[in-house]
Amino acid sequence: MAEAKVLSGAGLRGQVAGQTALSTVGQAGAGLTYRGYDVRDLAAHAEFEEVAYLLLYGELPCQAELADYKHKLKGLRDLPQALKEVLERIPRDAHPMDVMRTGCSVLGTLEPELTFDAQRDKTDRLLAVFPAIMCYWYRFSHHGVRIDCVSDQDTLGGHYLQLLHGKQPSELHVKVMNVSLILYAEHEFNASTFTARVCASTLSDLYSCVTAAIGSLRGPLHGGANEAAMELIERFQSPQQATTELLHMLERKDKIMGFGHAIYKESDPRNEVIKGWSKRLADEVGDTVLYPVSEAIDKTMWEQKRLFPNADFYHASAYHFMGIPTKLFTPIFVCSRLTGWAAHVFEQRENNRIIRPSAEYIGVEQRQFVPIEQR
Amino acid sequence: MAEAKVLSGAGLRGQVAGQTALSTVGQAGAGLTYRGYDVRDLAAHAEFEEVAYLLLYGELPCQAELADYKHKLKGLRDLPQALKEVLERIPRDAHPMDVMRTGCSVLGTLEPELTFDAQRDKTDRLLAVFPAIMCYWYRFSHHGVRIDCVSDQDTLGGHYLQLLHGKQPSELHVKVMNVSLILYAEHEFNASTFTARVCASTLSDLYSCVTAAIGSLRGPLHGGANEAAMELIERFQSPQQATTELLHMLERKDKIMGFGHAIYKESDPRNEVIKGWSKRLADEVGDTVLYPVSEAIDKTMWEQKRLFPNADFYHASAYHFMGIPTKLFTPIFVCSRLTGWAAHVFEQRENNRIIRPSAEYIGVEQRQFVPIEQR
Repeated sequence: MAEAKVLSGAGLRGQVAGQTALSTVGQAGAGLTYRGYDVRDLAAHAEFEEVAYLLLYGELPCQAELADYKHKLKGLRDLPQALKEVLERIPRDAHPMDVMRTGCSVLGTLEPELTFDAQRDKTDRLLAVFPAIMCYWYRFSHHGVRIDCVSDQDTLGGHYLQLLHGKQPSELHVKVMNVSLILYAEHEFNASTFTARVCASTLSDLYSCVTAAIGSLRGPLHGGANEAAMELIERFQSPQQATTELLHMLERKDKIMGFGHAIYKESDPRNEVIKGWSKRLADEVGDTVLYPVSEAIDKTMWEQKRLFPNADFYHASAYHFMGIPTKLFTPIFVCSRLTGWAAHVFEQRENNRIIRPSAEYIGVEQRQFVPIEQR
Repeated sequence: MAEAKVLSGAGLRGQVAGQTALSTVGQAGAGLTYRGYDVRDLAAHAEFEEVAYLLLYGELPCQAELADYKHKLKGLRDLPQALKEVLERIPRDAHPMDVMRTGCSVLGTLEPELTFDAQRDKTDRLLAVFPAIMCYWYRFSHHGVRIDCVSDQDTLGGHYLQLLHGKQPSELHVKVMNVSLILYAEHEFNASTFTARVCASTLSDLYSCVTAAIGSLRGPLHGGANEAAMELIERFQSPQQATTELLHMLERKDKIMGFGHAIYKESDPRNEVIKGWSKRLADEVGDTVLYPVSEAIDKTMWEQKRLFPNADFYHASAYHFMGIPTKLFTPIFVCSRLTGWAAHVFEQRENNRIIRPSAEYIGVEQRQFVPIEQR
């Protein structure tokens, strides 16, 4: 390995590890595109199912294709009985991302992907059942209720809210769920997607790739940021208090989640979108604390650190206004990002070589074995 | 991303993606070292628990430390009742690696790693329970038996054989299990270990990292090679038939598993070790087919392709001689490689930066959104 090249920077930052046709991040013109479309246009004008179709099937659907696709997904929403019984055995205080990871893995034992020809059908099935995996466990473990896992909701976002709250969601809430699911759907070679691709490169099955990706998204440096942002925002009773205490936190060099980004340098294109919807929701519920506190934190971070809110920061208040418990924020990210993960798995399979880098050895030199009696 | 560097070769081959003090692969002097020790010395003179201790705790244990460690592991072997109930719900025809992946994920919901201070204890627990996760599911789904998950066996290898066969294993079999577990324990930045490190780099929990790694090891390009080798060997009734048909397969450019290696260029240092033990086992059972057929394939691959057997090839016959069903070969790899995965997770956490490479965009250029009515 004497000839191996040492990469500049840890974490493979700025190093091209493969090719993709799925998205661009931080390129000129648009901050984020999915198959060439600006994510802001998609969030404004499309439904999440259109975007899922775009990522998984290659092009935006026409009206008939979208209707068929939504009909297909609707028919795939119920959970197998064995999976329900597994979810009932996961304790109430479990980490919801561990529930998603387990639910996905269990489904892989019940409905395996036996050939790659089935990859799109298996993805559609996962897309349809993820809301029920989350909500069935949550409602059973927290409220002792065995919910019905199907609903008449037309969209995945509406279906999720209905399972969670047990009632018809408002049009505004369905719209915001749509927007949120679109914004989180795909983001190039982020850590969870790269995890899925490394796993796919061994030609493992789709469930393994998605299970692995959920495990990576669980990490506080990745998917957990919107939950951490919520915990921050909730501490303050007024914008004034938020500003004062945030300044203290910054002096103490506390880590503030929901700001800045590994790739974006000036702003996160997803932020302006979700911020607008969070404001709409704040107005709807008559909020006078959470949104103003969020804005005060946003303003202070910019003034003090020149750091901008990323996609996660205003997602926190938006989800909260829709009555979603904080611990369920990251699992919604799973329901959305599944589309990006799966599309990357398809791509990796299409032109595969096993991902197997080298390491720089920094350990002890070769040494003589010492038998245990002489140690 | 204009400045991003395109890596030579797909799959990050030959590219240094990080540092490790755990092993060297293919360096001069010894083909494979664990923390400086030649794997051949370890396989000849150490027990697997000594090697696990070396990888996880940093140095080979003295006699008292090894006794304490084995005592600790022995006390951690039983499965939680909820995990048994989950395993009973996984069908008989499930892929055993999906069972391991699920068992690990479920344990993470029952006994979470709440702080990284617990990482070694959680690893020891996984090490102790993996044989039971595999064997409890296997014996229940295949034979309708709820086995006792604890045993008086002194070593993990012996414990595994006892749970699988329901009887005291021979000394020779325990020795070979030890050797096998040592040979598979660690191998630098292979795909499953790299998966675990990418996952760890988001600061996710240990169970997520191991679950993800199992998913990668499942792939036929990675952990599945010893099973594929077994399927090949079993086809032939004699060395002559093996040679003749292998020549036909090579003409047809069929993929022959168990030969060659991404890093080793001349030989796999693990092969000579397991080959010797496979021969011992063949003599013990009075085999006159499987081992000679294996040797004939080995010889033909060298003559025709200059390809050498890797660690997996003679593992196939060795496991078979010990009565291990072929579908359980890769899960044994999990029981062993867990030590390497976990040690890499500890290392990643010690000096972490999130692993987030870039991608080369090869998709369509930015394009205007078209409303669905106009598609």
